[in-house]
Amino acid sequence: MQYELIYWPSIQGRGEFIRLALEDAGADYVDVARGKGGVQAINRVLHGEGFEGTAPFAPPVLRHGALVIAQVANILDYLGPKIGLGPADEAGRHRALQLQLTVADLVAEVHDTHHPVSTSLYYEDQKKEARRRTASFMLHRLLKFLGYFEGSLLRNGAGPQLVGPTVTYVDLSLFQVVEGLRYAFPRAMADVEPKVPRVVALHDRVAARPGVAAYLASPRRIPFNQDGIFRRYPELDLAPGEE
Amino acid sequence: MQYELIYWPSIQGRGEFIRLALEDAGADYVDVARGKGGVQAINRVLHGEGFEGTAPFAPPVLRHGALVIAQVANILDYLGPKIGLGPADEAGRHRALQLQLTVADLVAEVHDTHHPVSTSLYYEDQKKEARRRTASFMLHRLLKFLGYFEGSLLRNGAGPQLVGPTVTYVDLSLFQVVEGLRYAFPRAMADVEPKVPRVVALHDRVAARPGVAAYLASPRRIPFNQDGIFRRYPELDLAPGEE
Repeated sequence: MQYELIYWPSIQGRGEFIRLALEDAGADYVDVARGKGGVQAINRVLHGEGFEGTAPFAPPVLRHGALVIAQVANILDYLGPKIGLGPADEAGRHRALQLQLTVADLVAEVHDTHHPVSTSLYYEDQKKEARRRTASFMLHRLLKFLGYFEGSLLRNGAGPQLVGPTVTYVDLSLFQVVEGLRYAFPRAMADVEPKVPRVVALHDRVAARPGVAAYLASPRRIPFNQDGIFRRYPELDLAPGEE
Repeated sequence: MQYELIYWPSIQGRGEFIRLALEDAGADYVDVARGKGGVQAINRVLHGEGFEGTAPFAPPVLRHGALVIAQVANILDYLGPKIGLGPADEAGRHRALQLQLTVADLVAEVHDTHHPVSTSLYYEDQKKEARRRTASFMLHRLLKFLGYFEGSLLRNGAGPQLVGPTVTYVDLSLFQVVEGLRYAFPRAMADVEPKVPRVVALHDRVAARPGVAAYLASPRRIPFNQDGIFRRYPELDLAPGEE
């Protein structure tokens, strides 16, 4: 049964964590709003049209038969075992979900570096606060998060990935985080990357996986841009310790 | 097998969503850092001492036999079916998890009303930004979130709760959100509550459940205070539309 991803057609955003998993697995899926469904498909699903049960609060949304679910980590927890990218055992499932939710926390903090006051305001209307928040993020959070994933890689005795003996959706998500951070904050990443060699090596191995490599080279991979989560504002490209 | 909750002993915080589920269910659990374990128990678990596999990034943490997991929604997804507070079927599980993750998003936004710049700074060092963020939260977010849960209650044909035919952990969490919002933002809640009568009614039914009522009346329920997520700062007690 085909998977339907319903997400903004013009950004990587949070939908990219789902796209990467589906592409890596070679799953049969359609990116609805990029096809003939258009962005109206997003409005329809948010209004709960055409299905029973809880409607999503926000995209990304996965539709699979009668099931319509939202929230990135929830979608990946559902998809993982089905597409060979998630542990099927209970302990492994909850370890992967825990790590994915920590990725989500990091992603939310990255988003708030450029929107610390409100998502309803333009960046230009919160530039001063954004710089203050970004400086704090660089000083207190970036290495804390990436160091946490470095330590998690060290603790997994089963191999050079985050959970268990094979690559899971969490590894793909960490790849995407490194990609995004490099795009948004090249100066900070130049400083931090040497301190997290396992994270960087995992990023490189994920990039070389056939499904991921083919996807990244295809027009299906939307380039980073100034509407997504990871944005490049020169005035926010601070190294840790700069204000 | 006894559940061990490892969380800050002096606040409700994110741990309260776990406490409420365990208390409602009458589960056999110990609140480790409030007992002889002390806060050292938190440091030990964050350092991965005494167990295999992924260490938590932050509390709350649940220990159950050999399994040590973190992230509120992940813990509740694990606990729910075991303590009679979560759907056991796949579709129900993912609907509950989706809603719990939306609760988590709301809780994170509430936290950032008083800490929009940095959790490493005192509130007093980000008061101006906090007021600006709070005003935007009141105008754009509070009713959007609570209205979403109101609509979810309306969509659940199986009864006056969020998922399926019985009360789940998500209902308990929504109760806690209403409690916290009333504490932190009484003026805004006076404005918004009449618009979400199903949410208010659910709150009242949860409060009357025997396990919850006994817990709320006990010394185990830590009062709201100025160190938790929900804080009362008079200058942030804005009604929607105020700046």
